[in-house]
Amino acid sequence: MSSREEARTPGAAAGHVSVVHLPNAWFILCASRELGDKPLARTLQGTPLVLFRGEGGKPGALMDRCPHRNVPLSLGRVKEGQLQCGYHGWRFDTGGQCRAIPGFLGEPEARTRCATSYATREQDGFVWVYSTPGVEPTTEPFRFPLLDARDYTTVRRVLRAPGSLHATLENTLDVPHTAYLHGGLFRTEEKRNEIDVVVRRSADRVEAEYIGEPRPSGVVGRLLAPGGGVVQHFDRFLMPSIAQVEYRIGEGSHIIVTSAMTPVADWDTLVYAVVTFRLPLPRWLLRAVLPVAMPVALHIFSQDARILRTQTESIRRFGTETYASTEIDVLGPGILRLLRAAEREKPGAVGDAVHETRLKMRT
Amino acid sequence: MSSREEARTPGAAAGHVSVVHLPNAWFILCASRELGDKPLARTLQGTPLVLFRGEGGKPGALMDRCPHRNVPLSLGRVKEGQLQCGYHGWRFDTGGQCRAIPGFLGEPEARTRCATSYATREQDGFVWVYSTPGVEPTTEPFRFPLLDARDYTTVRRVLRAPGSLHATLENTLDVPHTAYLHGGLFRTEEKRNEIDVVVRRSADRVEAEYIGEPRPSGVVGRLLAPGGGVVQHFDRFLMPSIAQVEYRIGEGSHIIVTSAMTPVADWDTLVYAVVTFRLPLPRWLLRAVLPVAMPVALHIFSQDARILRTQTESIRRFGTETYASTEIDVLGPGILRLLRAAEREKPGAVGDAVHETRLKMRT
Amino acid sequence: MSSREEARTPGAAAGHVSVVHLPNAWFILCASRELGDKPLARTLQGTPLVLFRGEGGKPGALMDRCPHRNVPLSLGRVKEGQLQCGYHGWRFDTGGQCRAIPGFLGEPEARTRCATSYATREQDGFVWVYSTPGVEPTTEPFRFPLLDARDYTTVRRVLRAPGSLHATLENTLDVPHTAYLHGGLFRTEEKRNEIDVVVRRSADRVEAEYIGEPRPSGVVGRLLAPGGGVVQHFDRFLMPSIAQVEYRIGEGSHIIVTSAMTPVADWDTLVYAVVTFRLPLPRWLLRAVLPVAMPVALHIFSQDARILRTQTESIRRFGTETYASTEIDVLGPGILRLLRAAEREKPGAVGDAVHETRLKMRT
Repeated sequence: MSSREEARTPGAAAGHVSVVHLPNAWFILCASRELGDKPLARTLQGTPLVLFRGEGGKPGALMDRCPHRNVPLSLGRVKEGQLQCGYHGWRFDTGGQCRAIPGFLGEPEARTRCATSYATREQDGFVWVYSTPGVEPTTEPFRFPLLDARDYTTVRRVLRAPGSLHATLENTLDVPHTAYLHGGLFRTEEKRNEIDVVVRRSADRVEAEYIGEPRPSGVVGRLLAPGGGVVQHFDRFLMPSIAQVEYRIGEGSHIIVTSAMTPVADWDTLVYAVVTFRLPLPRWLLRAVLPVAMPVALHIFSQDARILRTQTESIRRFGTETYASTEIDVLGPGILRLLRAAEREKPGAVGDAVHETRLKMRT
Repeated sequence: MSSREEARTPGAAAGHVSVVHLPNAWFILCASRELGDKPLARTLQGTPLVLFRGEGGKPGALMDRCPHRNVPLSLGRVKEGQLQCGYHGWRFDTGGQCRAIPGFLGEPEARTRCATSYATREQDGFVWVYSTPGVEPTTEPFRFPLLDARDYTTVRRVLRAPGSLHATLENTLDVPHTAYLHGGLFRTEEKRNEIDVVVRRSADRVEAEYIGEPRPSGVVGRLLAPGGGVVQHFDRFLMPSIAQVEYRIGEGSHIIVTSAMTPVADWDTLVYAVVTFRLPLPRWLLRAVLPVAMPVALHIFSQDARILRTQTESIRRFGTETYASTEIDVLGPGILRLLRAAEREKPGAVGDAVHETRLKMRT
Repeated sequence: MSSREEARTPGAAAGHVSVVHLPNAWFILCASRELGDKPLARTLQGTPLVLFRGEGGKPGALMDRCPHRNVPLSLGRVKEGQLQCGYHGWRFDTGGQCRAIPGFLGEPEARTRCATSYATREQDGFVWVYSTPGVEPTTEPFRFPLLDARDYTTVRRVLRAPGSLHATLENTLDVPHTAYLHGGLFRTEEKRNEIDVVVRRSADRVEAEYIGEPRPSGVVGRLLAPGGGVVQHFDRFLMPSIAQVEYRIGEGSHIIVTSAMTPVADWDTLVYAVVTFRLPLPRWLLRAVLPVAMPVALHIFSQDARILRTQTESIRRFGTETYASTEIDVLGPGILRLLRAAEREKPGAVGDAVHETRLKMRT
C-alpha cells in the first residue's frame, strides 16, 4: 500500500495525483551545520536515508538499513569515519562498502554486504544528495545566486509544507491566491489592476514575467523604492525543485527568494528558503525592518501551509485530484508537465527552445 | 483501500460485510438550526459534503472539494448566497455553478468548473440531502408522524452509533437482546412470556407485530395504562433508513420512536431520533416523568453503542461477517435484503404485495 | 490488507519477510493463574481467541467472535462452565457447541451456531493452545526441563518482544551481537577469543555448541565456578518456538534458560521465559545474588527489545527483508528453514538424521 492510498475515501478508486518520484535529481537533505559527528536520519521521496561524515569530514548518504539484519544504521554511531550498526557492529564507509564484522574471521568486504549509497555534495552551506543510488551524477546541484555579492544580505529558513512537491511549488509561485488568501497583507481583493503576464517554457524551467505591476503602496512602497520607478517581477520554476521569486523595484531594490524544495515523502515537502536582497536603506533602518518583515513572512507561510494541509487531506480522502484550471494558473500545469517528464526520464522539451505565451490578469 | 479493509486481521480475506451504499435515497444531514450563515462540513456514505444556505436561505449541498485545486469548500465562507473557496476565492451557487474567479478576465461559468451538487429539502426541522448527485429526485423525504398532532409531545435527540447502517437498524429493532443486554431495565431474563410475532415484508418495509405482550409491570405499567388494557407493539423498518417502534397501551398511551438514520461512513451511523407520544397523565406528572425517562433511554443507548462498537471492531478485525440467525431474529435479515436490493437499484419485491409469516418467541 | 503491508514505504513492493503462520503447533496463551472465572482475550498469530474455564475448570479456547452477531465473546461472562455472549446471551461450551439461546423455543445446538474451538492443555503452570482449530492434536506441548529437579531453582518471566517470531528467536540465540550490543555486560568487544562452533541441524531442531569458551572473568566467574573448570555452552532452537540456552560451568553450575515464544501477531511475540539453575553457592548467597542478576537480565532484554522494534519498523517501512549473513550467523537461517517447512506442513528433514557443520568465531 502506498501512502497515496491509505487515506482514501471508502470506495474511491485510485486516480491521478500530482505526486512524482524524481530520479537523477539533487536535493538538499540538511544544512551543513546539522551534520556533526553523529549519524542523521533523513527521508527522501519516501526512502529512509542516513547521513554521516566519513573520512576527511566528507558527507556520505546510505540507505538507512543495515544489509545484515536491516536495523536502521542511523541508530548506530560514527567511528573513524565509518558508520557502525548498533546491533552487531558492522561498519560501512561512505561508499557503502562493509569494512568490519566483529567476530567474523573472514574478509568483511563483499558485494552482498554493501549498503546502498547515494552521491553527495556539500555546497552553499547545504548537504545535497543525488536521488538515484549507486551512480556517479552527470549534473551538479543548483547554486544559489548572489550569496556572496557585495551589498546583498542573505537570510535562510527551513519550513515544512504538508503538501506534494508539485502543490508546494505551485502555491509558492501562484499570484492569484495572494490577493485572496493573504488578502490585505500585500495585495487586496478590491482595487485590482489589469496587468500583462508573459509565460516562458523551456526544457528545464517555466517562468512568468509580470508587466505593469504597480509599486507597492504605503510605507512598504516608500521603503523599497523611495524614488518610485518600475516594478520587475519574475516567478520561476527551475528543475527539479526550485521555486524562485525575483523583484526589482526602482533603482535600488532587488529581492530574490529561492526555495529549494525536498520531497521528503509523497505529501511532505521541506522548503529550504534563501532570501537574498539589496535594499536602498541605511544599515540602521534595515536592521529595524527585518524584525518586522520576518513575522509577516512566517504568517503568510502559515496560511499557505494550512491550505496545503487541507488540500492534501482532501486529495487523499478522495483518492484523486480533479483540477480545473484557467489561464491565470500560469505555472502549475507547466511545472507538473516538467516533473512528469523527468519522472519518466524524458526531457520536457528539445534543446534551448523557449515557448512564450501572453495573457492578462487582474491583480 | 476501503475502510472495510484497513482493520482486518492479518491474512484474513475480504468477505461479506453488511455495509451498503444507497443511491437515490434521502438522508438527514443536519438539523435546520445547525445550518446558519457558515458552511457546514458533513459526510454521507463516506463522501465529504458541504452544506450552506444559498439565495433566500434555501439549503445547498455540494461535494466538499473546490473544482479548482480541491481544497475543501467547507473551509471557505458564504458570501451573498454563494460559497467561496478559501484558497483563490472562487464562488459557487447551490447548483454548483461557478459564479466568480478573482483575477480572471473571462467568464467564470463553465461545465468543467462546476462543483458536484446534491438535491436538498428542508422539512420537519431537518435538512435532507439526496444521495445521488446531479439528479432531480423523483421521491420526497420521509415525514415524521404526528409532529403537530393535538395532545402529542415530541422530543428529539441525535445519537452517534459506531456501527454500519444495517447493524444499527437491526439493533434498534431487535427484541431478544433487550432482556439480556438491558436486562432488568424493561425486560428481564427470567419470567419470560411466550408471545406471537407476525412479520410482514413488502417492497419498502419490514414490520413485526408482537401479540400477547403483557402490560409493563410496576410503576411504569400504572403510569402508561392506569386502567390496564391490551398492548399493541409494532417494530418497523421503512426504506431507506427509518427504524420505528410503536406502542399503544390501553386506552390512552401511544408512543412512536422514529429513528431516521444517516450512514456517515461504512461503520459510523448518525441516529436522528424523534419520540412522539401521548400519555394519559396530567401535565404536571408528565413534566416529572420526562427527566427520569431521558437518562434511562440514554443509558440503554450507551449499552447498545458499546455493543455496536465491539461488533464493528470484531467484523473489521476478521474482515468478514459470519452471522448465524434463528427465527427470532425477525427483522435483521429482511432489512439487509431490502438494503442490498436498493443498492443494486432493484426493488425488493413487486408492487404492494405483503408477505406474512408467524412465529413464537419468549420475551 | 495484512499488517505486513500497512507500514510500507511508499512505492515499495511487498517482498520477503520472516513472518510465518504455523499450523498444528502448541503455544502458551497464558499462565494458569491468569485464567480465573472471567473470560480472557488473547491473540494467536493474529487471530483473536477467548480463553475460559469450562466444566471442572478445564480451560477452553474459542475464536473470539460469537457466531450469532460476531460480538467478541471475551466481553461476555462465564456461567456454569459455559461462555455467554454479552449481546443476546447465547451460551457455548469449551467445544464451541451452542447450549442456550434466550427467547428461542427451538433447540440451541446446531452446526451453524458452533463457535470455532481450539484444543487446550494445562501443563507446567501454563495454558497451551493448539494453533489449528477443530482438530484433535497428535502431539503434546513442550515440557520444560528440570522443573521439579532437586537442588534446582526456577524463575519465570513473561516479556513482550516487538519482532517477528523468527527475529525474536534469532536474537535470543545469537552470540555475536552480545559483545557489541550488550558490550561490557558479559562479553566485551576487545579481548576476543577464537572458539569453535559445532552446528547440528535435524528435523525438529537446530543446535550450536560452543567449544573453548573461557570461564567468565571476575566476580561472576568466581561465583559460577569457584573451582575453575570447563565451560559447556549450547544454544538450541526446538520446533515450533522454543529458544534454549544451556550453560554448564565447572562442577557445580548448570543454567538452562528456556524461552517458549508465542507469535501474537506478525510482529509481536510473547516470550515465556523459564530460567532453571543449580549454582554451587550457599542458599544465603544465592538469595543475595538473584536481586542483582534480575535487573541485569531485564536490562539486556530491554536492549534487545529496542533493537527488535527498530528492526521491525525498518522491515515494515521497506516492505521486505534483505538479510546478508555470514557463517557466524549460526542459527538464524536454519531456524527460518524449519519454520517455513512447518508453515507448508512439510517436515524440515527426514527422520532422525543430524547434519553437523563446524566453524570458528571470535567471541
